[in-house]
Amino acid sequence: MPIAQRSVEKLIGLVDGNMQRAGGQKISLPILTPTGLWKKTGRLEGDISEFYMVRDRSGKQFLMSPTHEEAVTAMVATTAPISYRQLPLRLYQIGPKFRDELKSRFGLMRAKEFLMKDMYTFDVSEETARDTYSRVSAAYDRLFKQLEVPFVKVNAATGMMGGSLSHEYHYVSPVGEDTLMQCSACGFAGNAEVLDSATTECPNCRSSQLSQVRGVEVAHTFLLGEKYSKPLGATYLNTSGKPQSLVMGCYGIGITRVLASALEVLSTDQELRWPKLLAPYDVCLIGPKQGSKEQQPAEAVENELLQHLGQICGAQELLHDDRKELTIGKRLLDAKRLGHPLTIVVGARAVQQEAPKLELHVSGGEKLELDISEALKLVAEHSRQKKSLLAGRVREVEESRISQSIGHQL
Amino acid sequence: MPIAQRSVEKLIGLVDGNMQRAGGQKISLPILTPTGLWKKTGRLEGDISEFYMVRDRSGKQFLMSPTHEEAVTAMVATTAPISYRQLPLRLYQIGPKFRDELKSRFGLMRAKEFLMKDMYTFDVSEETARDTYSRVSAAYDRLFKQLEVPFVKVNAATGMMGGSLSHEYHYVSPVGEDTLMQCSACGFAGNAEVLDSATTECPNCRSSQLSQVRGVEVAHTFLLGEKYSKPLGATYLNTSGKPQSLVMGCYGIGITRVLASALEVLSTDQELRWPKLLAPYDVCLIGPKQGSKEQQPAEAVENELLQHLGQICGAQELLHDDRKELTIGKRLLDAKRLGHPLTIVVGARAVQQEAPKLELHVSGGEKLELDISEALKLVAEHSRQKKSLLAGRVREVEESRISQSIGHQL
Repeated sequence: MPIAQRSVEKLIGLVDGNMQRAGGQKISLPILTPTGLWKKTGRLEGDISEFYMVRDRSGKQFLMSPTHEEAVTAMVATTAPISYRQLPLRLYQIGPKFRDELKSRFGLMRAKEFLMKDMYTFDVSEETARDTYSRVSAAYDRLFKQLEVPFVKVNAATGMMGGSLSHEYHYVSPVGEDTLMQCSACGFAGNAEVLDSATTECPNCRSSQLSQVRGVEVAHTFLLGEKYSKPLGATYLNTSGKPQSLVMGCYGIGITRVLASALEVLSTDQELRWPKLLAPYDVCLIGPKQGSKEQQPAEAVENELLQHLGQICGAQELLHDDRKELTIGKRLLDAKRLGHPLTIVVGARAVQQEAPKLELHVSGGEKLELDISEALKLVAEHSRQKKSLLAGRVREVEESRISQSIGHQL
Repeated sequence: MPIAQRSVEKLIGLVDGNMQRAGGQKISLPILTPTGLWKKTGRLEGDISEFYMVRDRSGKQFLMSPTHEEAVTAMVATTAPISYRQLPLRLYQIGPKFRDELKSRFGLMRAKEFLMKDMYTFDVSEETARDTYSRVSAAYDRLFKQLEVPFVKVNAATGMMGGSLSHEYHYVSPVGEDTLMQCSACGFAGNAEVLDSATTECPNCRSSQLSQVRGVEVAHTFLLGEKYSKPLGATYLNTSGKPQSLVMGCYGIGITRVLASALEVLSTDQELRWPKLLAPYDVCLIGPKQGSKEQQPAEAVENELLQHLGQICGAQELLHDDRKELTIGKRLLDAKRLGHPLTIVVGARAVQQEAPKLELHVSGGEKLELDISEALKLVAEHSRQKKSLLAGRVREVEESRISQSIGHQL
């Protein structure tokens, strides 16, 4: 729907920025991948109950791709010979993925169709592939700090994806479907899959304060090696002109899942709360009710505010609730439901003779009474904080919330 | 691939801007639509050989949607009762569509999977739906003028989509698969489907200068009426609180097809040419070859240019070809292939004692020799032209290229 779509587009912009800083080039892979490619990599041999498969009019079979390792590797394999000089290649896309889940649930959290950012990297050697892994991981760390939702990064099993090194990013939430082991003494965290989930001893600090929490997996990184490039013949020409298998990595972020689970973690029963950079609008402005006795003078204030706000936070970040036929209370309720970071109300008190005040609702429950210039200052401060986050100046307090993890020993 | 992807993203941004100016709100509909919905509207009764169909693990059947009238109408039908006050609704998305073509060809021009912008509008009456039709059509006209590729707008048959009024936007090209009738006397144009293709008499000016040309359909608008809202029960509450069928329209633009066919129309055998607003980069900068005797002084010029160009056209619009191991000639050939609007070469003549000159290649074949300040002026002029186009100041010359059409008599 339009409101959430705005948030999705902001997240896409944020991810684009971070991927491009990590040397990523955006591409677009077909949704349909011939099953023949998956046969070559052996990935049709396991449990395929989650795959949507479709045949075209000629009988050729395709997967509605749940992931694109085969597609991108086959594409790279069929391009003109790649020279070592052209590497590393870091290709990514943002698009729909499909998984025929037995139990889809929690809306966007586990849907059969979902939006993913998937990056595939191609290097000359395991060593440079590890450099790439560090660089992309750093971009992930930066992104998740920019979102200001506490996250844990854990060592993970490589599973059906294969490869030698893997990390998961989790949001801790009771609705999470993964079990994480977290140490309250040193902050260490790991996926229960790769640890002994019966133990309470922390493998890092040896304290006995390891306990289970639930996590929502929002991102995953893999060092894949030659698992896909070998069977699909994706090679490059080395310094002596000889073809050699490309060394790959893949890096996913669940775009719609990040959004849904961030809202889940941040919100209360009373109020939706968004990561600062993902709120659909920064400011909601509610003017006087039609027919109220303050309508005319209050509208003058409203119009003045509209102009100033447009300049401060950008017109596209301003939601003007001009349904004047509704009471302020009714519109304020809608605004609370949508969880705007700042909601400004121009009511009767905005036009009183002595010390006129705007009502300002800050996401998180605070309600302030401010004069116009104070209100505008608050909006400007919000915009400044956003700009600062976008520039990568993430708060130290966020940094300390991140559990020290095996990943940091990379 | 990355270069074309940049162009696609620019086109998406341009389309977003124009749709939002026309009151559009962006949404995202699922790719899979239950076939049950299509049964209700009767659209599974015709030729379904172009549909990709898939069943999930429970046996439920879905279409990989070639279009989304059913999906969006069912969605609107199941939201809370919509009041006449909330209308019109103009919802659009940009996403992949699927058609199991018998003959896919010309790459992105007719592919089985392609990117579409599809808008669906909901109005209280046929009359207001016609207002919506005019407003969205105006947004389409503006967009196609911004692209600066000559187009014709013709009255069209409504076909499987149904409805009462329809127009197509075409690029004229020998690779086009539609036959248009165009009058060289008055500029009138129509689709041969709705005219008598044997006649040479123009139905507009009665001259006998009507002849056939080939067109690539790049966009299509339909006034749908109640064809979908009736069977799917999509209603609103009128002023007396009674439910009434919504009156719909739908409006498509083939995103990837616009790009492919614009390139087809504009390019020559020697050189790719992009619409100004869609070129992947505005400027390509080629510096001296490594080891050449002018390398050092020329690199000083190159660095100076890099800084200035970044400021003038934005760093993201600048492609710096720093493959210094390649000759200038080889890199210039690549630049020509990619068809950058401006390519600047810093070679030996850039550092000669007397009247140093940069070589500047303008898309379309012109090669200029300019000093730095002249070159920068040209880049600034290009950026100014782009800004002007983005602001909707389309050239009058483009306007006159548009055939007068039945559509203009709306």
